[in-house]
Amino acid sequence: MNITLEQAESVIAAAKKQATELKTKMNIAVVDSGSNLIAFVHMDGGWIGSVDISVKKAKTAAWFQMDTKALTPLVQPGQPLFNIEHSNGGLITFPGGVILKNSSGEIIGAVGVSGSTVEDDHTVAEAGAGAVK
Amino acid sequence: MNITLEQAESVIAAAKKQATELKTKMNIAVVDSGSNLIAFVHMDGGWIGSVDISVKKAKTAAWFQMDTKALTPLVQPGQPLFNIEHSNGGLITFPGGVILKNSSGEIIGAVGVSGSTVEDDHTVAEAGAGAVK
Amino acid sequence: MNITLEQAESVIAAAKKQATELKTKMNIAVVDSGSNLIAFVHMDGGWIGSVDISVKKAKTAAWFQMDTKALTPLVQPGQPLFNIEHSNGGLITFPGGVILKNSSGEIIGAVGVSGSTVEDDHTVAEAGAGAVK
Amino acid sequence: MNITLEQAESVIAAAKKQATELKTKMNIAVVDSGSNLIAFVHMDGGWIGSVDISVKKAKTAAWFQMDTKALTPLVQPGQPLFNIEHSNGGLITFPGGVILKNSSGEIIGAVGVSGSTVEDDHTVAEAGAGAVK
Repeated sequence: MNITLEQAESVIAAAKKQATELKTKMNIAVVDSGSNLIAFVHMDGGWIGSVDISVKKAKTAAWFQMDTKALTPLVQPGQPLFNIEHSNGGLITFPGGVILKNSSGEIIGAVGVSGSTVEDDHTVAEAGAGAVK
Repeated sequence: MNITLEQAESVIAAAKKQATELKTKMNIAVVDSGSNLIAFVHMDGGWIGSVDISVKKAKTAAWFQMDTKALTPLVQPGQPLFNIEHSNGGLITFPGGVILKNSSGEIIGAVGVSGSTVEDDHTVAEAGAGAVK
Repeated sequence: MNITLEQAESVIAAAKKQATELKTKMNIAVVDSGSNLIAFVHMDGGWIGSVDISVKKAKTAAWFQMDTKALTPLVQPGQPLFNIEHSNGGLITFPGGVILKNSSGEIIGAVGVSGSTVEDDHTVAEAGAGAVK
Repeated sequence: MNITLEQAESVIAAAKKQATELKTKMNIAVVDSGSNLIAFVHMDGGWIGSVDISVKKAKTAAWFQMDTKALTPLVQPGQPLFNIEHSNGGLITFPGGVILKNSSGEIIGAVGVSGSTVEDDHTVAEAGAGAVK
């Protein structure tokens, strides 16, 4: 199962709405279950350096079928996955990447958000994920 | 001058409409005048390999301030810019990348389309470019 | 707003002067607000490995609209942006990248300096930034 | 023997002067004999996509100790070095990269110019090379 563009656009619309409520300027990327880019928006005035980070958060979540915040403790020095970011052309393992599931609970993709604090980024990504039906 | 997200979304909507009329499944990327990704969609069932091609077409047009089809004859064997594609992390120099101008004639970004014949790709990109106000 | 070459050359002249006073041999890079390289010098005898570091410091500052030393505490193990350096083709997040503002306070680019201690690097970058009018 | 920054700056000054006379907006890069970047300028309004091309032209010339235009016929389809551009992280093999020699005839680096026709690019690079003493 893979996300449709219609679903991806609903994720982006919900994430944009949440980003605006938080007065943030986000980059929002949606990938399918194979980590391919399906939809993306850069909100006016957002950090340009966060374009790539939002895409890498989404890809990281989809590649490992878990939110990036689940990876964060595992990639610290001395922990099992320390420096895993060197794989796959670059991962981002801090919060803001969230997996997307359909109503049957199957993973159909992931959303990555970057442009504010990692807490805001994760909140906006969760809002996007909540829009999938 | 740089494209706004609202303008980029109008480009994508117009390009998607044209793509549907042509019964094609396109990847459509919009970048700002500095070749940064502003908006992107992958239409359901389109070639995954064309995600990157659409982005590179848009970036190529913006970097050199001309449609990619203007570059095509110049990059052929024996022509002045043969193998220019090895610069900037990879260019795409066949048709489908079109510059975006505002009502004052200023370049504000570019759109790149990939997923069908290069003629269809260019037609869809042109339709997108026509939506900028 | 973007930096002009004349402004970039004044940044480099001021940074070189400061570098010489500190008896250091610096690499000094100036980028525009979109992180594109505008001017660069490598002082005789400076570390060759610092060419790329100076460019990446300047790009990092411009992409995130802040001095690289503001990022340093945030990218440490256990901190929110740990390993953000894997994005954008490689960031440098220790001191030596400084944003450049015009007289209206608008960000017009950034300067990156590498070749000595990070304290010296930052001092030289600051001297360069002070030359923008 | 390697180029000094003072020599590199004289190359850039002479190239800029020639570029202005030709009413072109060039990117001009100087590398040492090991293809390390020594000095660079982007003239206001020049193509951003040519930043990287100018650097790659200079590096290509220095790596192979010949002007890039000497490589052009050798990289055509069916010729001995076809697609050599895939090496070294990307070469540019059309005109505009010129080797720099000191008064003893030793190669001390190269200059790469990009931003106009390849004929103009080569003319400006030659003007730069003529400034080395």
